[in-house]
Amino acid sequence: MALRMNINADMGEGYGKYDIGDDDAILKIVKSVNVACGLHAGDATVMRDVCIKAKENGVSVGAHPGFNDIWGFGRRQIRMNANDLEYLIAYQLGALAGMAAYAGVKVTHVKPHGALNNMAAVDADYAMAIGRAMKTVDPSLYYLALSNTEMEKAALALDLPLAREAFIDRLYDDNGNLATRTNPATVIKDPKVAAERTVRMVLDGEIISINGKKMPTKFDSLCVHGDEPTAIAVAQAARKALEDAGVEIVTLPEMMAG
Amino acid sequence: MALRMNINADMGEGYGKYDIGDDDAILKIVKSVNVACGLHAGDATVMRDVCIKAKENGVSVGAHPGFNDIWGFGRRQIRMNANDLEYLIAYQLGALAGMAAYAGVKVTHVKPHGALNNMAAVDADYAMAIGRAMKTVDPSLYYLALSNTEMEKAALALDLPLAREAFIDRLYDDNGNLATRTNPATVIKDPKVAAERTVRMVLDGEIISINGKKMPTKFDSLCVHGDEPTAIAVAQAARKALEDAGVEIVTLPEMMAG
Amino acid sequence: MALRMNINADMGEGYGKYDIGDDDAILKIVKSVNVACGLHAGDATVMRDVCIKAKENGVSVGAHPGFNDIWGFGRRQIRMNANDLEYLIAYQLGALAGMAAYAGVKVTHVKPHGALNNMAAVDADYAMAIGRAMKTVDPSLYYLALSNTEMEKAALALDLPLAREAFIDRLYDDNGNLATRTNPATVIKDPKVAAERTVRMVLDGEIISINGKKMPTKFDSLCVHGDEPTAIAVAQAARKALEDAGVEIVTLPEMMAG
Amino acid sequence: MALRMNINADMGEGYGKYDIGDDDAILKIVKSVNVACGLHAGDATVMRDVCIKAKENGVSVGAHPGFNDIWGFGRRQIRMNANDLEYLIAYQLGALAGMAAYAGVKVTHVKPHGALNNMAAVDADYAMAIGRAMKTVDPSLYYLALSNTEMEKAALALDLPLAREAFIDRLYDDNGNLATRTNPATVIKDPKVAAERTVRMVLDGEIISINGKKMPTKFDSLCVHGDEPTAIAVAQAARKALEDAGVEIVTLPEMMAG
Repeated sequence: MALRMNINADMGEGYGKYDIGDDDAILKIVKSVNVACGLHAGDATVMRDVCIKAKENGVSVGAHPGFNDIWGFGRRQIRMNANDLEYLIAYQLGALAGMAAYAGVKVTHVKPHGALNNMAAVDADYAMAIGRAMKTVDPSLYYLALSNTEMEKAALALDLPLAREAFIDRLYDDNGNLATRTNPATVIKDPKVAAERTVRMVLDGEIISINGKKMPTKFDSLCVHGDEPTAIAVAQAARKALEDAGVEIVTLPEMMAG
Repeated sequence: MALRMNINADMGEGYGKYDIGDDDAILKIVKSVNVACGLHAGDATVMRDVCIKAKENGVSVGAHPGFNDIWGFGRRQIRMNANDLEYLIAYQLGALAGMAAYAGVKVTHVKPHGALNNMAAVDADYAMAIGRAMKTVDPSLYYLALSNTEMEKAALALDLPLAREAFIDRLYDDNGNLATRTNPATVIKDPKVAAERTVRMVLDGEIISINGKKMPTKFDSLCVHGDEPTAIAVAQAARKALEDAGVEIVTLPEMMAG
Repeated sequence: MALRMNINADMGEGYGKYDIGDDDAILKIVKSVNVACGLHAGDATVMRDVCIKAKENGVSVGAHPGFNDIWGFGRRQIRMNANDLEYLIAYQLGALAGMAAYAGVKVTHVKPHGALNNMAAVDADYAMAIGRAMKTVDPSLYYLALSNTEMEKAALALDLPLAREAFIDRLYDDNGNLATRTNPATVIKDPKVAAERTVRMVLDGEIISINGKKMPTKFDSLCVHGDEPTAIAVAQAARKALEDAGVEIVTLPEMMAG
Repeated sequence: MALRMNINADMGEGYGKYDIGDDDAILKIVKSVNVACGLHAGDATVMRDVCIKAKENGVSVGAHPGFNDIWGFGRRQIRMNANDLEYLIAYQLGALAGMAAYAGVKVTHVKPHGALNNMAAVDADYAMAIGRAMKTVDPSLYYLALSNTEMEKAALALDLPLAREAFIDRLYDDNGNLATRTNPATVIKDPKVAAERTVRMVLDGEIISINGKKMPTKFDSLCVHGDEPTAIAVAQAARKALEDAGVEIVTLPEMMAG
């Protein structure tokens, strides 16, 4: 039986006249995109454009909600009331559904962005707030969550479809959490290193910490990034290595359908 | 056969810690609300709250999209690309649909806010952009438009459900357009004046310009405001006068169902 | 020799069409104002207006910089790079100096706002960032800091003029820090309680914690608030009680001149 | 006697994680920079950085205020109250002065950005609002204005130092106004065309319209842009051609000193 894996990436992070990342290149590598929803990055024009391009490339669309913080690009940790956060997420899910109508596609997953993702990994209130927003707006959405986190627990507690992800280009600490991005050393920039590491992760079902600790981990999707100068090469190398190892790259709904 | 009329008002125009207008009072007067969608006013928490209260009061919910301009409260005229404007509207329609899920209600109409409403009344590109957004996100939405405007034409051209509105508390110029709000004299602040004027409008099917010119006009909804100190008293007086004259006040979908 | 004391309050926290607090009432009570600088609240029009009114009332003007977060009103704790924070503060100090030119007044102190004030009280990096911004833009500015905090230490370390403040209407924890505002019980709303407490603080030179612990504390200014429904009455009562006890209320520069 | 000319360019138009334009390249070509002030582009960190680099390169610093519209990058025309606009400009002038303190430089000119520049060229209320802000915050600032515009008239009416500019890479209409940027054809992208045209402008003291009309025009500074892919090459070619023609490129204060 053939191995399959989803690859996802954040996209649509431009804002007005500002552009960031190489969306066209990324769309050739991944099979699912996490679309910024206008509050930390992205805008209506960009969101529509990404949805249309995703459809053209046979790529599934997910929401990538973040804090309402354009200046900080959603990378600043913000402490706020969990109910307000929940509604902020629901707002973004609704907005993306509106823009996806231009492409005639359905949004199929949710993955929190940046600091929100980092906080929700360890903060049950935040993780549950995201889950409740999904449950209200569209309970069929996959909660794309880091394995071994409060997000995973929230999806299970709320009986939401759960898809687990692991990272191709980021290092983990010994607890299986992502090491903070403010430390540049935690971002893998060498395509060869990333490719070898990725194949081992998929074939062995393990992630490896910054200290070499191996942690058996279930995951359905591999995350790559597009906003580092080296990111495209890293992602391309990882995808090619997976395919060479006999792994078929599929959309997230295809992956979850088994 | 009994006369019927809808009354609508803008609501949910707070933002974060900022509050404006008396939403609870307005909800007792109107049967339809135009909910700010977070870009010129309103936020996710406020939008959810308004949707829930609207449902509790038997009031139908519409979107009140505006320019992306919190500081200007959507009252500054902004010249922008019509396609970008279209997507900005679609974004807001989607976002409100997301928040309306908390109340289990369907958004049933769209009424542009402030400067966007003024510009779309006379600018065909803007009026059509709003209509295209509605057509894409939900073609069953009523385009709640001032009579005799480019918005009315756009709704007809796009084959969108059209509901025409007239204003209880604002004066018209001799072309049937709203006189600009920057002139305070164009806002009617005397409840008795507004009440008498409203009854004549409904019974005679006419609007009256600032110069006394009578213009036969079809309308399905009367707009009141909640953000002037005198607005609540004006709206209450108008509603009571209509009821005393035998006019039943109904939601917009009920009004349009005939 | 006569006892003297400064009273300060935050002001100018409106934004565009949004208004908050009763600035005119507060200006009759305090002798120094902390003016929001446009990033968490306030805007250019409001800032100019407050500066002019402050001058007319013989009230000294200080900057009240906060996080760049209008929606959160500066009350959300935000984790960010300390250098970026420093420049964000410097930006606000410069902006207020620009608006103060309309009144021909000099900005004489800096007091951080909301979550920034809370964080800088315990975080040396934040406290020093604020101090470095002051040192660069205008080293004659008083750092108006809570006693016994990292801000006090930063002012001393940077050799900046230091003015210490205590709160009339907020409770302290046993470490002399302000208890968090998210707990409503930490805001004193009874004018009589606040007045008696204030007189004891000034005459005894002590603050009293939520648990009744007395802590000898030096302070030059008492802070009152204007954004609670009860705040004006609390502040008026405290000022009157101080004057009845023979304490002269003076501007911050007068207070520091001794 | 040697010919002299100033060259200016907009700079510091990044925002948070977003970057735009090639500031380092532009700094080698111009002798004056117009620094975005945080409301349409730019932020405190960027402003500080530009001021420091400008000083290192012997380049004079000016303010480049715009509408408060990050999404629109200040390129959307916004209709607003002229007094509010005035204060918005004063705010930006103050903020930049604050950031310039990090470099120990004085801001020496003001040039409006984008849509504000276009509107103020033809709208006396806007042109005067900008001038009044300068007069209040620092009356020694040069008003860097397009020749033959309302801005020129405002500077003269308010007795402000006036420096006139012409454009290297933009076409004029037959009235001497800049043709709108929404038409891509009005941006000159061929370095050779721009270079020849620039030398003729400087040596003949004339600008040439899109229809070939020659208009004798006095100017002290030539504007180049950095945000088009071709802009750097265009600016380099123009500068080199001027130097080859014996024109010395100097800062704006040096140019005005004669």
